[in-house]
Amino acid sequence: MNVFIAHINGHTANLTAEESWHCYKVLRCKAGDQIHIIDGLGASYKGELITANEKQCVANIIEGPFYQNKRNYYLHLAIAPTKQIDRIEWMIEKAVEIGIDEISFIKCKNSERVNLKIDRIQKIVESAVKQSKQAFIPKVNPIEEFKNVIGTSADIKLIAHCEHDNKLRLRDLEFKNKKIMVLVGPEGDFTMDEIQMAKAVGFKPVSLGDTRLRTETAGLYTVQTFAILT
Amino acid sequence: MNVFIAHINGHTANLTAEESWHCYKVLRCKAGDQIHIIDGLGASYKGELITANEKQCVANIIEGPFYQNKRNYYLHLAIAPTKQIDRIEWMIEKAVEIGIDEISFIKCKNSERVNLKIDRIQKIVESAVKQSKQAFIPKVNPIEEFKNVIGTSADIKLIAHCEHDNKLRLRDLEFKNKKIMVLVGPEGDFTMDEIQMAKAVGFKPVSLGDTRLRTETAGLYTVQTFAILT
Repeated sequence: MNVFIAHINGHTANLTAEESWHCYKVLRCKAGDQIHIIDGLGASYKGELITANEKQCVANIIEGPFYQNKRNYYLHLAIAPTKQIDRIEWMIEKAVEIGIDEISFIKCKNSERVNLKIDRIQKIVESAVKQSKQAFIPKVNPIEEFKNVIGTSADIKLIAHCEHDNKLRLRDLEFKNKKIMVLVGPEGDFTMDEIQMAKAVGFKPVSLGDTRLRTETAGLYTVQTFAILT
Repeated sequence: MNVFIAHINGHTANLTAEESWHCYKVLRCKAGDQIHIIDGLGASYKGELITANEKQCVANIIEGPFYQNKRNYYLHLAIAPTKQIDRIEWMIEKAVEIGIDEISFIKCKNSERVNLKIDRIQKIVESAVKQSKQAFIPKVNPIEEFKNVIGTSADIKLIAHCEHDNKLRLRDLEFKNKKIMVLVGPEGDFTMDEIQMAKAVGFKPVSLGDTRLRTETAGLYTVQTFAILT
């Protein structure tokens, strides 16, 4: 059964404009068809379409809400996008499949990419949520300067860099019910200045294992480590 | 400094034919240049080129061997390749970056891809080994029928499938100094018949977490879980 994102009002689900178009034009659903609905906030429903046209699809809710199990931590990954866009895109897809709450993109000194189409990232995120049968859509933030991103609040603030440093290991952290933020740098790594700036506002260096990981692998490794250790 | 794969004979390193071509024609190295050398078996060296032409590059070893730390487990992943070739290719790249010992490809009942260019996979593997500064090249096996693949010996034999079953969790396994083999199925999952065949020869069902993962994500999740838990 097809899955769509909708705003829920009592017993009615209004598919978003884009989802309505997709529902009617691409998947050719019609009134009377049963669909799966998610609200993007953690709840899913079974519904029956009562209106279906390219501008607006509306469904009656016939079962639900069913709530997705919440993770017992909040993970915010802030990563410098890679030069090759497909590398960061697959990372996002996989991170969502495995479980993440918020994604930010950073402009660093050594960044090889400083622009990113957030609409496109948002679509990848939503598609991965639906594909992996989840109901919560992670928050996606536009690309921002490093100095602004490190101002974000979190209970546990980590920076993954490749310089020699006194590094924590993810597996040694107590992160239950905590908001965690992890910074992952660009292909050329964070500069020493950036590392110092982050440390000055409470970020602790963290190790991601013994091998040298690409940016996108480091991002996914982080997401997956918390998923495994929880 | 560039990294090349070579056969080591005493104090001499003979770059493979392909690496010689790459060294001379693409990277335009010449006699006298210093290079990094790996033997693919876990040792790396520093060398100085004494002969450089498109057919054969030879270096004198000036430092080494340096040995890569061995993992304390042997991981053999057997996976059904995905319909979209780039999905399985990135999985291989990431698995190598994070750490794997052997990769097999399976033809299953529900496989959407039954052919795979192993030469191309081998190149991806070698490139990821060099990029992540490792010295050990994982073994890559050609694609094989499911019934043959499950005949492979291992200390811990696992099958990741999506049916309801009494499943182990990776994190509960004792895998130190063990040879582990994990089967990951195609987009349409293993059939009940295949699951039964595998169980009959000692494979135990294993869970890869709460969300539904794509084939390639499941493969990488497995590789990464062992890396994190070791």
